[in-house]
Amino acid sequence: MAVRFAQRMNEVKASEIREILKLTQRPEVISFAGGLPAPETFPAEELAAVTARVLAESGAHALQYSTTEGYPPLRRWIAGHMNDTLGTTVTADDVLITSGSQQGLDLTGKIFLDEGDVVLCESPTYLGAINALRAYRPRFVEVPTDDDGMIPEALETILDREPRAKVVYVIRDFQNPTGRTWSLPRRHALIETARRRQIPVVEDCPYAEVRFEGVPLPAVKALDKDGLVVFLGTFSKIFCPGMRIGWVAAARPLLEKYVLGKQGADLQTATLAQMQVARYLKDYDLGANIKRACAIYGTRRAAMIRALEREMPDGVRFTRPAGGLFLWVELPADVDARELLLACIERNVAFVPGGSFFPNRGHENTMRLNFSNMPPDRIDEGVRRLGAVLREFLARSQAVAPLEHEAVAG
Amino acid sequence: MAVRFAQRMNEVKASEIREILKLTQRPEVISFAGGLPAPETFPAEELAAVTARVLAESGAHALQYSTTEGYPPLRRWIAGHMNDTLGTTVTADDVLITSGSQQGLDLTGKIFLDEGDVVLCESPTYLGAINALRAYRPRFVEVPTDDDGMIPEALETILDREPRAKVVYVIRDFQNPTGRTWSLPRRHALIETARRRQIPVVEDCPYAEVRFEGVPLPAVKALDKDGLVVFLGTFSKIFCPGMRIGWVAAARPLLEKYVLGKQGADLQTATLAQMQVARYLKDYDLGANIKRACAIYGTRRAAMIRALEREMPDGVRFTRPAGGLFLWVELPADVDARELLLACIERNVAFVPGGSFFPNRGHENTMRLNFSNMPPDRIDEGVRRLGAVLREFLARSQAVAPLEHEAVAG
Repeated sequence: MAVRFAQRMNEVKASEIREILKLTQRPEVISFAGGLPAPETFPAEELAAVTARVLAESGAHALQYSTTEGYPPLRRWIAGHMNDTLGTTVTADDVLITSGSQQGLDLTGKIFLDEGDVVLCESPTYLGAINALRAYRPRFVEVPTDDDGMIPEALETILDREPRAKVVYVIRDFQNPTGRTWSLPRRHALIETARRRQIPVVEDCPYAEVRFEGVPLPAVKALDKDGLVVFLGTFSKIFCPGMRIGWVAAARPLLEKYVLGKQGADLQTATLAQMQVARYLKDYDLGANIKRACAIYGTRRAAMIRALEREMPDGVRFTRPAGGLFLWVELPADVDARELLLACIERNVAFVPGGSFFPNRGHENTMRLNFSNMPPDRIDEGVRRLGAVLREFLARSQAVAPLEHEAVAG
Repeated sequence: MAVRFAQRMNEVKASEIREILKLTQRPEVISFAGGLPAPETFPAEELAAVTARVLAESGAHALQYSTTEGYPPLRRWIAGHMNDTLGTTVTADDVLITSGSQQGLDLTGKIFLDEGDVVLCESPTYLGAINALRAYRPRFVEVPTDDDGMIPEALETILDREPRAKVVYVIRDFQNPTGRTWSLPRRHALIETARRRQIPVVEDCPYAEVRFEGVPLPAVKALDKDGLVVFLGTFSKIFCPGMRIGWVAAARPLLEKYVLGKQGADLQTATLAQMQVARYLKDYDLGANIKRACAIYGTRRAAMIRALEREMPDGVRFTRPAGGLFLWVELPADVDARELLLACIERNVAFVPGGSFFPNRGHENTMRLNFSNMPPDRIDEGVRRLGAVLREFLARSQAVAPLEHEAVAG
């Protein structure tokens, strides 16, 4: 067929995570690949009850078109909840309801990025953000990142040499994929740089409330006095992902652009779904549900860490996140996690190769493991399989390594 | 603030329809401006029942992430329904569930349009399509259009001189804004041109089943042997708009691009909403609901036509659509409908000025009237107000016209 597509479609590829998820849907596969919340935390019964109430009391409204900005009671709840839990001072007018926070990422690309503009991100960063933003054809510059977040001096140096830098993208709590959390000084340094350079920061915050231990630090948005931080929130990890309710919170001059972008993209998020969630938040206690979810996920994280400590050979390092859904594994430098994955799938265990999370590639000896979606005994068994495949891999590569070294030297 | 946005944001403007809707939400305003379906046609009770069933039987699935393509039973139903009612031969695999057909329009821009590419459209065309596609910075070329659709010779001439033509966008039944329906020969001519030129046709089909009289003609997609037609469908006008369930149906090579575009845009449409709709379609009779809606809208259209015949002064022409939600009014050439609207809003009646539906502007003496959202007595009263304001307008312009003519002549 001679149909011509836009040039951006040369770069937009199928998400590896979602393609792998398809391969691993056989029930015998223990998959650490997805980012699925535990369905036992979903309030299905309560949702049926609130749906009946919403449709009986306001069916004509719930099933009709409504405004792009979103359902006012839900916007109000979100503003209040952010202010209570994150130290922000946003109002309902600063909130736009989106179809998951993924839509917030797409709209970020739409409103900020011309072809060739530069996105600064953590290294590694969220694969879904890379995919969403790539459609707008930016260059990604990965800012050197350690266990405390982006290194401020490195960020400054990059900004000095990149006049087309348009936006800094960060996940400050329990980052996807690494599970890392930014320290308070790093948060202050980021907002100080943003203020001095007048560059917007997109703060993606899907996991902050999924905390197992320690005390929350203020959001970058809470430190923002200049309206430069765009906050992306979602109910996917604290309530359920299947309703696709997320939000953007930003100062009006920025939020208005997001509203325009969304108007063209899909007019509005479903009225009924917004009213269902708002009514749930009114009639039930989301906090109790989050507490229950955190207890479950905390147990699973502990199980995964114990299993990794037991099963991983020497030379393997991994993070010990205080919250979120993922941890991050660094394998010995010569292990290619993509090859390892193929061997693992044959043995019915799966993960996401970490190279996918680096927009400019490299770091193929890394992987992301999800611990939220299965009970501890399955985690134990999965990590056992993973360890066995990895040890075989290492034994084989040590056997051939001298030859390879000679070949390279020659 | 020194924040720099993408260049496309210079062109993306607030939709006039939605801004006007905000002005006209006072209950004393009779608004013919929106495109709202009648809420008395929404099956609120049935939806409460199916929601309870879905959540009781499959809550964990309904509230979880799912595939980008959509819920398989819903995709199957849509394929079957299209084949039954439109003469197509699509399969479930050809269907992608979207957040309303508006998202299908946004994805069309994303996958086909580089800056400066050309979109061919009817003249006038749907404002929401203009807004969605404009974000991708194309040039719009309006193809001369009469009561039977685009004029084939004009389309060919334009394609001869526009090498960057990427896509032809049409609404073939009860078009928004004109209410016109393409004749069968014009449908054949369009698909023949598309085939010869290998140019994709995007066939937007929100209203086909909202037919008050006459017999349906085959969809352009039904005449397509080469996989060149992208069909955009929606449940908004035959079920309810507040759940935002639409679809794209296209041959796999095209559909795969839409799937990739959607993956970046919002991962997937809400699982629960898809399962609610699918279950409604299984347990209830959508056809009966459509029949009821058509009876209501047919009565309202008749009321509006009678009122216009009674109230409009000489020199006003309007369409008499056999279906859909809108009719189109051409005022005397010297009436500016945007000015008329301001006077009308003071008298508590509203419409959308027709100039908004021409991407290259002009035609300011036109307006779109919606007849689906209010009972006949309100339509009568609204058209009476409209006629009164218009007659005053004409009297004033005739009083000053000779002077203006002299000024122009001088």
